[in-house]
Amino acid sequence: MDVSEAIRNRRSVRKYQTRNIENDKLDRVLETGRLAPSARNLQEWRFVVVRDGSRRKRLAEAAKGQTFVGEAPVVIAACATVTDYVMTCGQLTYPIDLAIAVDHMTLKAVEEGLGTCWIGAFYEEEVKKVLSIPPEVRVVALLAIGYPDESPFPRPRKDMDEIVAFETW
Amino acid sequence: MDVSEAIRNRRSVRKYQTRNIENDKLDRVLETGRLAPSARNLQEWRFVVVRDGSRRKRLAEAAKGQTFVGEAPVVIAACATVTDYVMTCGQLTYPIDLAIAVDHMTLKAVEEGLGTCWIGAFYEEEVKKVLSIPPEVRVVALLAIGYPDESPFPRPRKDMDEIVAFETW
Repeated sequence: MDVSEAIRNRRSVRKYQTRNIENDKLDRVLETGRLAPSARNLQEWRFVVVRDGSRRKRLAEAAKGQTFVGEAPVVIAACATVTDYVMTCGQLTYPIDLAIAVDHMTLKAVEEGLGTCWIGAFYEEEVKKVLSIPPEVRVVALLAIGYPDESPFPRPRKDMDEIVAFETW
Repeated sequence: MDVSEAIRNRRSVRKYQTRNIENDKLDRVLETGRLAPSARNLQEWRFVVVRDGSRRKRLAEAAKGQTFVGEAPVVIAACATVTDYVMTCGQLTYPIDLAIAVDHMTLKAVEEGLGTCWIGAFYEEEVKKVLSIPPEVRVVALLAIGYPDESPFPRPRKDMDEIVAFETW
């Protein structure tokens, strides 16, 4: 599947089949996170892969009760291990670097016939408790992943001329 | 080109051919940014596309004198228009959402035979002056883009077992 197609076909999937994800598929998804670029090649990420059902249920509770999080066969907690590096432009590297890695995984998942949902609505301290994540680490995203059991329509996007300017603002 | 191949082949390219980028190619790259997912579908991005040579030179100066920025035929300033939305997990949406959009563009560029370099080392206020960007907007990244005139080796990556954990940290 080419890049454009994966980008066009990606959806936030909130309903999953009970079918599990094959290990080799999951490995290929994780590999695209591993290969992500990062500022100064910091690679300040660690991905906690959760398959255990009771743990996923507790993650769903930490995600404000979004039950589909517990129904996805796999939930990945995307964590940042270096959280104080600021680029000259004034931005912290870690939210950006983690976002690149997770984005790669969402697109590779589409290519593998899987669906994902990127979750930012969760209580970080609760997630850290469930997964024994050290205090100094930040959890940037939860990623639910599994075989989709729905085909949501794409959400509307702004027109190109609203989001692109030439030469100056 | 499939997603894995684009991810494997992506490099930070710092040497470009003088050849310009065809408009339709650039449009297809920008389109993948337009289609990016964002928190609450905010789409809080605006991309300033710079082709003008003297303006690119000034961006290169703002990027701490990284001359290749002025040599790339196109530089895109990736800007955030909503900068105060914080998700439950404690993260601002804008660095993450902008990173997803820019990441899409870097991968689509590979598919189009183009190279990119994601730049975080720039003085934001200088860039804003050059491109007449309003004070309340944040410039999250500069993206140099053009036909590559070098094939850098991939930088080393951590092993999988260093960055992946199962069930708990």
